[in-house]
Amino acid sequence: MAKTYRVGLLGLGTVGTGVAQILQDPGARHPLFAAVKLHRVGVRSLAKERPVVLDPALLTADLAALVDDPAIDIVVEVMGGLEPARTLILGAIARGKPVVTANKALLARHGVEIFRAAQKQGVYVMLEAAVCGGIPVIQSLKQSLGANRIVGLMGIVNGTTNYILSRMAAEGAEFATVLAAAQELGYAESDPTADVDGYDAADKMAILASLAFGEQVALASVYREGIRGVTGADIAYAAELGFTIKLLGIAQRQGSSLGVRVHPTLIPRHHPLAAVQGVTNAVQILGDPIGEVVFSGPGAGGGATASAVVADVLNVVAALEVAPGRVNPLMEFPFDRMAAIAPMSATVTAFYVRLVAADRPGVIGEIGVTFGRHGVSLEAIIQKNILPNGAAEIVAITQPVQELAMQGALADLRQVQSLGAIASVFRLL
Amino acid sequence: MAKTYRVGLLGLGTVGTGVAQILQDPGARHPLFAAVKLHRVGVRSLAKERPVVLDPALLTADLAALVDDPAIDIVVEVMGGLEPARTLILGAIARGKPVVTANKALLARHGVEIFRAAQKQGVYVMLEAAVCGGIPVIQSLKQSLGANRIVGLMGIVNGTTNYILSRMAAEGAEFATVLAAAQELGYAESDPTADVDGYDAADKMAILASLAFGEQVALASVYREGIRGVTGADIAYAAELGFTIKLLGIAQRQGSSLGVRVHPTLIPRHHPLAAVQGVTNAVQILGDPIGEVVFSGPGAGGGATASAVVADVLNVVAALEVAPGRVNPLMEFPFDRMAAIAPMSATVTAFYVRLVAADRPGVIGEIGVTFGRHGVSLEAIIQKNILPNGAAEIVAITQPVQELAMQGALADLRQVQSLGAIASVFRLL
Repeated sequence: MAKTYRVGLLGLGTVGTGVAQILQDPGARHPLFAAVKLHRVGVRSLAKERPVVLDPALLTADLAALVDDPAIDIVVEVMGGLEPARTLILGAIARGKPVVTANKALLARHGVEIFRAAQKQGVYVMLEAAVCGGIPVIQSLKQSLGANRIVGLMGIVNGTTNYILSRMAAEGAEFATVLAAAQELGYAESDPTADVDGYDAADKMAILASLAFGEQVALASVYREGIRGVTGADIAYAAELGFTIKLLGIAQRQGSSLGVRVHPTLIPRHHPLAAVQGVTNAVQILGDPIGEVVFSGPGAGGGATASAVVADVLNVVAALEVAPGRVNPLMEFPFDRMAAIAPMSATVTAFYVRLVAADRPGVIGEIGVTFGRHGVSLEAIIQKNILPNGAAEIVAITQPVQELAMQGALADLRQVQSLGAIASVFRLL
Repeated sequence: MAKTYRVGLLGLGTVGTGVAQILQDPGARHPLFAAVKLHRVGVRSLAKERPVVLDPALLTADLAALVDDPAIDIVVEVMGGLEPARTLILGAIARGKPVVTANKALLARHGVEIFRAAQKQGVYVMLEAAVCGGIPVIQSLKQSLGANRIVGLMGIVNGTTNYILSRMAAEGAEFATVLAAAQELGYAESDPTADVDGYDAADKMAILASLAFGEQVALASVYREGIRGVTGADIAYAAELGFTIKLLGIAQRQGSSLGVRVHPTLIPRHHPLAAVQGVTNAVQILGDPIGEVVFSGPGAGGGATASAVVADVLNVVAALEVAPGRVNPLMEFPFDRMAAIAPMSATVTAFYVRLVAADRPGVIGEIGVTFGRHGVSLEAIIQKNILPNGAAEIVAITQPVQELAMQGALADLRQVQSLGAIASVFRLL
């Protein structure tokens, strides 16, 4: 191997530090590392103290110059955020440089622009690290499952929310308490919106669904609901009924369209995804003819994400070694066609509903009648608990029903004051 | 894409039929399928009835001529067995044709010869389907985990034995009963040796360990023990102690050597592999820096295995499209160095031992003393049950101990008639 591939690294946070550590310590890894050199590291501030021992001569705060530098063969973007990441990536592509990125938010929003530019220039844009950290789900979708027709894909793709829900379940604690603890431990950001409101999971599902089905899924078409409304009571009632509550991303064929959604979901206790605890991520793919495969592992963290970034670098190097200036068609990202998306109102699921109602005879019957008026059949309706104020907590599980009908029934129930209040509504798997 | 890649398929059993079905029905799969055509199918008997609708003109019983046919670009071997598969594969390689094979027995025995010939000719030999059916563990080890130093790999890699052990646990049944039922259902062969005695799992572990550690692991150096000795009583006692018994393949670094072994193993109930039921396969890989990733899915069956075969075909086609006559270095198989293998006697594990002893005072103490003489410390020793003949069943769990010391203690125990008989010995994870 005569050629050396010089890497320009944009960002030296947790992931960037992990990437630098691997590239500077290639022993007992793949022999191809001999051809890869860390050439320059772009950071926002040269003054900041860094945990990794780096030759200070490698550091630069001039990110645009790094991308322009003709000595750099591959640009690795792990700085995050939309700008200047987008401009820097497009700049690298325009100069014919392959790009490896972990930036799910950017790809979910500007993926089409980026992949189109990459196709025009004939360069790789690799994104394994953007989804589920080190779990090789992107490469598997691109290169290992291509013989299949993908029927559906679902997963726990956000570690922060799974950590929170796991602790709430284990400790019988409430969301706010566990969130605060997670923030102290560094498992949740000080502004937790992206995680707990499902934005991060929606970004990842847009990317995963696009790859799985070979058509671009617009981020705006991903239905999204976070976990702020999940209470300790819901988790306990769900457990009594044999379910675990997880923030699940689900992408599936619905007739000739796709449905892609992220929401808290009651999963049967013995389902493989129900056992996924803490910050672990897991993705289940259902394909024809393969059947069900499940990938699980660390969904975040510097080491795991860096592992995926460097694997992408290695794949680009290996591909360029044998085919300089060409792009392997299995390593491209499909973006030519936009996917037809089924409206959420057409989705069919069963529901869990927790109501707080007056404790008087006939309430359960009236609730059942209201559901029935909208064609919503009940699988079970159970009075659970008398609250300190004398009201009764009632939990209902519906049969599978179209979202539109269910929303109609819920709107109706909300109007009948005597039936009390709807405290929680979650979908079943 | 101007070029068409013509596939010659050797074998039309379950997997071959699955491959033919996918190749003849490319709609809604990867667009690259447009370039792939099933050109000829080699079978042992032209007279046999086939479940797949194939143009009879595709069939031939002259397998050597199929390999020789200059119209054929890629040879897919799914006939199984050592010969003529080995000769046909070497013939294809000699003619510069890439090969896709699902033949684990052949690769575990003649892999070095085959991969050396492939390297000399500069052609691909792909083997995803040889291990764990459709689960993309080979590709992940080759292409996705290359940034890691692999610390260990373990898994449930044989579906038949996992099916038998799962049913024994669920039904409290004995091995022979469940084996007979599995044979009737087609989950076990009429000669079940390859599966139940661990040969198939050892083949797969030799291949997986070679890939994971980048050094060739000789099949003869894989320690192997099957599941015939696992009884319903052992499964029940293990469960009481919090363990599930699985046939586990384990490959790990032991100092500067590797240890690779297949044996029935007591796994803690909450370990991810303990939950793997029936014919499902699962592989857990521990890497630095990625941490633990787990892959699970159907380990056998025509559809799943065919999915892996056709994915390999697609990968070869994609790679040849951009780099004809070259081999991507990440898609090669490492065979240049033989791995240094630690002797089984140096392996350290805890043990489960079931003894049948006279029901008299002092027996448990004497057993403990005998273990102690060999430096084997006990974690627990429990009298479980008085058998109809008046003997007592005793279960001991040891602390982790070197295999050599443990075997010494067991030999000693076997000599002391008054202590009764050793009924079962299994290792803990």
